[in-house]
Amino acid sequence: MSTIDIDASAFQSSGADPRKPDAQVLNSLAMQLCACYSVSDSEKELADAVERFLKRFGHLEVMRQGDTVIARTNMGRATRVILAGHLDTVPVIDNFPPAWLEPGDATIREDVAAAHPGERVLWGRGGVDMKGSDAVFLWLAAVLTQPACDITYVFYDHEEVSADKNGLGKVAAAHPQWLDGDFAVIGEPTGCGIEGGCNGTMRFDVVTHGVAAHSARAWMGDNAIHKAGEVLDRLNAYEPATVEVDGLEYREGLNATLISGGKGTNVIPDECRVHVNYRFAPDKSIAQAKALMFGADCPVKLDGGECQATGGVFEGFDIEMKDESPSARPGLTDLQASKLVRFVKERTGRDPVAKLGWTDVARFSALGVPAVNLGAGDPLLAHKADEQLAEGDLVLMAQILGDWLG
Amino acid sequence: MSTIDIDASAFQSSGADPRKPDAQVLNSLAMQLCACYSVSDSEKELADAVERFLKRFGHLEVMRQGDTVIARTNMGRATRVILAGHLDTVPVIDNFPPAWLEPGDATIREDVAAAHPGERVLWGRGGVDMKGSDAVFLWLAAVLTQPACDITYVFYDHEEVSADKNGLGKVAAAHPQWLDGDFAVIGEPTGCGIEGGCNGTMRFDVVTHGVAAHSARAWMGDNAIHKAGEVLDRLNAYEPATVEVDGLEYREGLNATLISGGKGTNVIPDECRVHVNYRFAPDKSIAQAKALMFGADCPVKLDGGECQATGGVFEGFDIEMKDESPSARPGLTDLQASKLVRFVKERTGRDPVAKLGWTDVARFSALGVPAVNLGAGDPLLAHKADEQLAEGDLVLMAQILGDWLG
Repeated sequence: MSTIDIDASAFQSSGADPRKPDAQVLNSLAMQLCACYSVSDSEKELADAVERFLKRFGHLEVMRQGDTVIARTNMGRATRVILAGHLDTVPVIDNFPPAWLEPGDATIREDVAAAHPGERVLWGRGGVDMKGSDAVFLWLAAVLTQPACDITYVFYDHEEVSADKNGLGKVAAAHPQWLDGDFAVIGEPTGCGIEGGCNGTMRFDVVTHGVAAHSARAWMGDNAIHKAGEVLDRLNAYEPATVEVDGLEYREGLNATLISGGKGTNVIPDECRVHVNYRFAPDKSIAQAKALMFGADCPVKLDGGECQATGGVFEGFDIEMKDESPSARPGLTDLQASKLVRFVKERTGRDPVAKLGWTDVARFSALGVPAVNLGAGDPLLAHKADEQLAEGDLVLMAQILGDWLG
Repeated sequence: MSTIDIDASAFQSSGADPRKPDAQVLNSLAMQLCACYSVSDSEKELADAVERFLKRFGHLEVMRQGDTVIARTNMGRATRVILAGHLDTVPVIDNFPPAWLEPGDATIREDVAAAHPGERVLWGRGGVDMKGSDAVFLWLAAVLTQPACDITYVFYDHEEVSADKNGLGKVAAAHPQWLDGDFAVIGEPTGCGIEGGCNGTMRFDVVTHGVAAHSARAWMGDNAIHKAGEVLDRLNAYEPATVEVDGLEYREGLNATLISGGKGTNVIPDECRVHVNYRFAPDKSIAQAKALMFGADCPVKLDGGECQATGGVFEGFDIEMKDESPSARPGLTDLQASKLVRFVKERTGRDPVAKLGWTDVARFSALGVPAVNLGAGDPLLAHKADEQLAEGDLVLMAQILGDWLG
C-alpha cells in the first residue's frame, strides 16, 4: 500500500500569520486530503498521514484511537475550544481523483460560479463534505502556535455510516477526557455560516393488532390495517411546531416513513406497522419528546418490545421504539460562541441559523459541550456527484477561525 | 413409477342398485383415492387410474385433457347433469398415507365423533377436500347404467393452485362442449348440504402518490402514506351489505388485506399501496361491482395500469386492478336443482345456504351452467392437518345423488 505525506514545507519557517491565511497553502492542503481516497472503512491511510503531519509540531500533543487522530495544545488557557472534522467520505461516483477547475471552466456549476466569480474550484469527492474544512483545521493546527485559548483538533473516522461505527462516538466512550472542552465547532459544510444545534430524532413503530381470517369470511377476523386508519388520521391532524431556541428557529416534523401490513391477498391482516419519525426541537429532551408522543408514564424504550402509549399523540396504540437520538441546543449564549457569531457576521454578514438534520454536534451536546457547525462549502452539494468547493471558502473559513482563535 | 389400479371387482355383476349404496365399496374407493398421493402438479398417477377405471364401463364415453378425465353417458336424455370433483390436494402435513380410525379412537376429532357417533373415520390428506366426493362420483359412474338424465363426470387437476393452472378452466377453454349441461354439482365438502352460487371477488391496489424528501425537511416533500389515511377512513366507513339472491343470503366484504409504502426510515414516502379485496354478491356483475368501487365510467381493467376512480367508494384515488372473478347465482330455480334441494332436505333436514368463498361453480356459471356445491365432509376440516371424513357422509352423499339421478 502506498503512503502519502501531507506537505508541511510551508510551515518550516515559524513566521506564518494565523490572521493572514495563504490561499496557495490552503488549496494545496485541501487537494492533498481529497486526493487520498478515504471512503468510510478506508480512512487508515489518510489518518496515518494526518497523524504524521500533526506530530511535526512541537506545540501539539497527538493521540490516536483507531483511525481517529486528536491533537491538542496544553497552554493552560482558561478556555478550550474543539475543532472537529471527519476524514471519511461517502462512496465515490465518478468523482475521484479530484481536480482543480479554472475560472470559466464549463464543468463549474452555475450556482458555484455565481456565488464565487473568478475563483478556482476544487472538484471531487469530499471537497465539500468535509476535507475543505479538514484542510483549514490542519492549517490552524500548524500556524496557531500561540492561540488565545487551548484548542483540541479532532480528525475522526466513520461519520458517513451507521452511528455505532462513528469514531467520535468511540473516543467519547473510551477516552471522554480527550473531548473535554467549553465549545466545539464541527466543520460540516455551512458556507462558513453558523448552523447551531440540531433537532433530535426518534423512530418508532405504531403497531395495530387484529385477528386473521379468510377474506371471504372477513367478519370472523379483525382487520389490523383498517385500525391503522386512526394512526394516519392522528398524523394528518398533527400540526408540527416551529420552536425558537436561543434565538434560532427549529422546525419539527412528525411523519410516517414506512407502512406495512398483511399476510396475503386473501387474508384479513392481523398486524400493521406504521413506522414514524419524530424530529423534535432542542427545547425537548428525549424523555419530553416521548411524553408528547406516548404519555409521560409510558415506559417504552429501545429494545424494550411493544408498549401501550398511555397518552400523547398515539394514546392507546402499541409502540415499539426503534431509534432515538437527542437534540442539541445551539449553545450560542456561551462567551466563545458569541465572539464567533460576531466574527462570522463581520466576514459574511450572516446570522446563525438552526441545523435541522441530526449531526455530531449532538454528541458534543451529550458530553456537555455546546457545539455548532461551521465549515467550507455549500451543504447542498454534499454527497452529490458534482461536489465542488470554491477556493474562496477555504480562505474565508481560515480568516474567521484565525480571527477568533489567533 | 408405480401405478395403481382402482378396484372395480364390486361392479363386475351388473346388479348394483344405485339407490342402495354399499358402504364397504364406497369406503374402499375413498381409501384407494386417498392412498394415491396427488398434491397439485402430481395428479398424473391418480388421473391415469381414474381413466382406466372409467374405461371399464361400456355405458361411458371417456375423454382426457392433461390430467383432467371426463366420462359421460350419451343416452339422449332431455337433461344433462355434470358432477365434478378435483383430484388434487393441498400439500401434505404429516397426514399421508391415510388410515381408517375405528369408533372410539382417540385420534378422532371430538366434533367429528359427536356428529357421527359409532362411525369409522377416514383420516388423511384429501379425505374431505375432496376425494370422498370423488369416490361417490366414481361409484355413481359405475352403477348408474340407466340414469334418469345424461351425466357428465369430471375429475380435474390443479384446483388448489393458481387459477391459470386449473384443469376445469383448461377444458372450458379447449373443449367447452365437453362441459355442456343443464346443471352442475361440484363435490366441494358441504357435509352433504347444498351451498349455492358464490360471491364474486376482485382485488386492486389503491395507490397514493407523494414527493420524496429527507424526513428532517419533511415540508420539502409530500407524504403518500399520510394520504392513505383517507383510503382507510373510507374502508372503515363502508358498511358491507348482506344480499339475498334466489332466497339465499350472501354476505359481502370490503377489506384492505395488504398495505405497503415508504423507501427508508428517514425518507418522506412518495408512494403507498393499499391492496383491497372486494367480495360481492351474485346480484352484481363484475362491471356493476367496479361501478360501486370506482364509478361507472372508470375504465380500470386488469393489466391496464393505474386509473383514477371517477366515483364510487374510492373516488379520486388511483386504482390498479390485480384480479377479478365473477360471482355465480345459486341457480336453484332450475327444475333439476329444485329436485335436488328436495332430496337433500329429506335426507338431511337442511335447506340450501349461500357459498361465500369463490369456487369453481363460478366457472360453470360463466359457461351458462347453473351449479352448486354438494360434497362429503365438514368444510371446516379442508386443508387442515387432521382432515377427517366420517364414513356415513359417503353413504349419505351417494343416497342423495342416487335418489336424484337413479
